Amino acid sequence: MTTAGPFAERGSARDIEEGPAFAPKLDDGGVMAAVATDADTGDVLMLAWMDAEALALTIETGQAHFYSRSRKRLWKKGEESGNVLEVVEMRTDCDQDAVWLKVRIAGAGAACHTGRKSCFYRQIPLRTGDLAGLQMQPVGGPPVFHPPAVYESKKGQ
Amino acid sequence: MTTAGPFAERGSARDIEEGPAFAPKLDDGGVMAAVATDADTGDVLMLAWMDAEALALTIETGQAHFYSRSRKRLWKKGEESGNVLEVVEMRTDCDQDAVWLKVRIAGAGAACHTGRKSCFYRQIPLRTGDLAGLQMQPVGGPPVFHPPAVYESKKGQ
Repeated sequence: MTTAGPFAERGSARDIEEGPAFAPKLDDGGVMAAVATDADTGDVLMLAWMDAEALALTIETGQAHFYSRSRKRLWKKGEESGNVLEVVEMRTDCDQDAVWLKVRIAGAGAACHTGRKSCFYRQIPLRTGDLAGLQMQPVGGPPVFHPPAVYESKKGQ
Repeated sequence: MTTAGPFAERGSARDIEEGPAFAPKLDDGGVMAAVATDADTGDVLMLAWMDAEALALTIETGQAHFYSRSRKRLWKKGEESGNVLEVVEMRTDCDQDAVWLKVRIAGAGAACHTGRKSCFYRQIPLRTGDLAGLQMQPVGGPPVFHPPAVYESKKGQ
């Protein structure tokens, strides 16, 4: 566990659960989970990760920043695609190791790199034991932009 | 990365993003993030973790099961408190390393161990640079049950 640099120090369990100070708890990899929902519909748009810098930049700017665990670097959501997430409200949970962002999407209005509004575009069947043969159903409609066109046009910029 | 036991094998990037097979990706700790939202209001209720067994049991039973990273064991949400999460819909995301559960809460109707409906009961101020002095605001109303009464009455059972 890492205490996040610029933020308040972690206090007692009661401080953490009931207090007003934001004292985030990062995991061994230096990140916490961040879930973004559509401020208007409540749909979950994406789940990503924040390190201390991403948390700080999100709070300071009101635009969602994340930390890519695969690319090992900070990224501002929408920096390539234009689909910036404007944060309407930000909350933390009881033990302060996760955040919830209610957002509005700028640009083409898609949070997913596949061009869909939400990354959660497939439904998993329930109450079945055939776990290896699960057939998911598409939900949430077709892509709102064509990803290669967006990302490739930015190359070299 | 671990491929989750009873599920389909991970295929190509295109299979994973566009295919119907559920082939979850677990992290180095053998878990993925799971976000539960209220099926009626869209509010985020909690963020927790699932290993392969928790995923399997959630799909098979339609009731949310998680893996506690701190206690290092499977738990059925509500096993002590009665606040079982009945899963109305379950989705995975583009790279299949997270799930979203739309749920209805049984029992007292609280997802949080503090007795509140949602674990996300404090709002973080935005567009400020005073990161060490952030004062969060309570949101979402008072607890709907008194936690010690619920959890202590179950001791020894």
